[in-house]
Amino acid sequence: MANPTAAMLVIGDEILSGRTRDANMHHLTGRLTEVGIDLKEVRVVSDDATAITNAARTLAAEYDEVFTSGGIGPTHDDITADCIAAAFDTPIDVREDARAILQAHYDRQGHELNEARLRMARIPDGATLIENPVSAAPGFSLQNVHVMAGVPSIFKAMVESVLPTLTGGAPLLSETVRIDRGEGDIAGPLGDLAAEFPDLGFGSYPFQKDGRYGANVVVRGTSTDALAAARARLLDLFPGDAS
Amino acid sequence: MANPTAAMLVIGDEILSGRTRDANMHHLTGRLTEVGIDLKEVRVVSDDATAITNAARTLAAEYDEVFTSGGIGPTHDDITADCIAAAFDTPIDVREDARAILQAHYDRQGHELNEARLRMARIPDGATLIENPVSAAPGFSLQNVHVMAGVPSIFKAMVESVLPTLTGGAPLLSETVRIDRGEGDIAGPLGDLAAEFPDLGFGSYPFQKDGRYGANVVVRGTSTDALAAARARLLDLFPGDAS
Repeated sequence: MANPTAAMLVIGDEILSGRTRDANMHHLTGRLTEVGIDLKEVRVVSDDATAITNAARTLAAEYDEVFTSGGIGPTHDDITADCIAAAFDTPIDVREDARAILQAHYDRQGHELNEARLRMARIPDGATLIENPVSAAPGFSLQNVHVMAGVPSIFKAMVESVLPTLTGGAPLLSETVRIDRGEGDIAGPLGDLAAEFPDLGFGSYPFQKDGRYGANVVVRGTSTDALAAARARLLDLFPGDAS
Repeated sequence: MANPTAAMLVIGDEILSGRTRDANMHHLTGRLTEVGIDLKEVRVVSDDATAITNAARTLAAEYDEVFTSGGIGPTHDDITADCIAAAFDTPIDVREDARAILQAHYDRQGHELNEARLRMARIPDGATLIENPVSAAPGFSLQNVHVMAGVPSIFKAMVESVLPTLTGGAPLLSETVRIDRGEGDIAGPLGDLAAEFPDLGFGSYPFQKDGRYGANVVVRGTSTDALAAARARLLDLFPGDAS
């Protein structure tokens, strides 16, 4: 059976302006590979309601799971929750369970749960809360969309809260073979080999080191036997240059 | 007049599987901000012909400029050039000017311009070549889509070849004010201030340091006067806590 598919939606002007280098994408890609969910697409959009709503609606229809990061804090530019609700035509308002979590958190800290902070308790009807062990304000899952914070430490924690609730597939495994020949010399035999193993993916990633050209060939698949067979064929194809 | 808009399309299984952390997005975002082109969206797709072609067609219709990275080498998984040609219903074949560049390069290196390397001379009809001072194999611009390599050193060089051919706008400037109060306390006054300056963008990026909460408020716009006025108002709003 094919693995479930997924997309990620990164929300935030600070990524698109270059001010902040996104770290959440790289983290999520690695975790999804481990649990056997195939990430097929990532989109990064600005803090614009139409852009967020349209992207969420499109990705939710196309993929089994959608993970979002960013835009769920207390400030005016935090509009993700409302956009996700709009994408599913679902009502959204302050929800008592989320408000209780925030109230307890700010009581402990001695801060007031003011109007701005209360925005973080706005949760669409029917959504399930995603625990935030770092700073309390929860994310949520609405249908197949999982809405998480953009701050990397909180994003990571929320990913660990969500993943156990999802059904993964076979973890994607890989074998890397380093070949000390130029990619142009590798390409012909590699293309033939890829055709021999239609269930495996073959990627070629060129490098240049100490003036010599080479490539790391990465073979990906879910069968250890098939990966081992492909590795053996690669070593045979490029004797003396593959390791 | 509004700045031109742009999107980026990152192509490559290695990014989506988490094997490689993309570096080109962060580089391009910074350069586009400097030249006054507003990057509105980034998409990352796998080495899949349908995904690449559809994304390129959609983004080219929606934005003034589209920048792609990845998938233009000599191996079987390098299919970007054919996909961009397909997106514009344009014929593609080995083009003599591109072949001549590769022939000269491999003659100098003492390598054969074999069938695989010749794939890198496949250029859509009517495209303009993008110079590659690193490893010769050119990128190309077809209509408003600029097709560049995924290897970061080559991507960077190609960006510098392309940007002078484009019309930019007013560079996006920014002012950052650090406010040593929790985002929940900043949010109310900040939202009002954002409404006062509709031509500026206000982003709030929370941090936690030594157990204290704070936020960097980043104000973006093209007018230095407006930015200075917004900065002064921020310092007034949060006396003693803003710098």
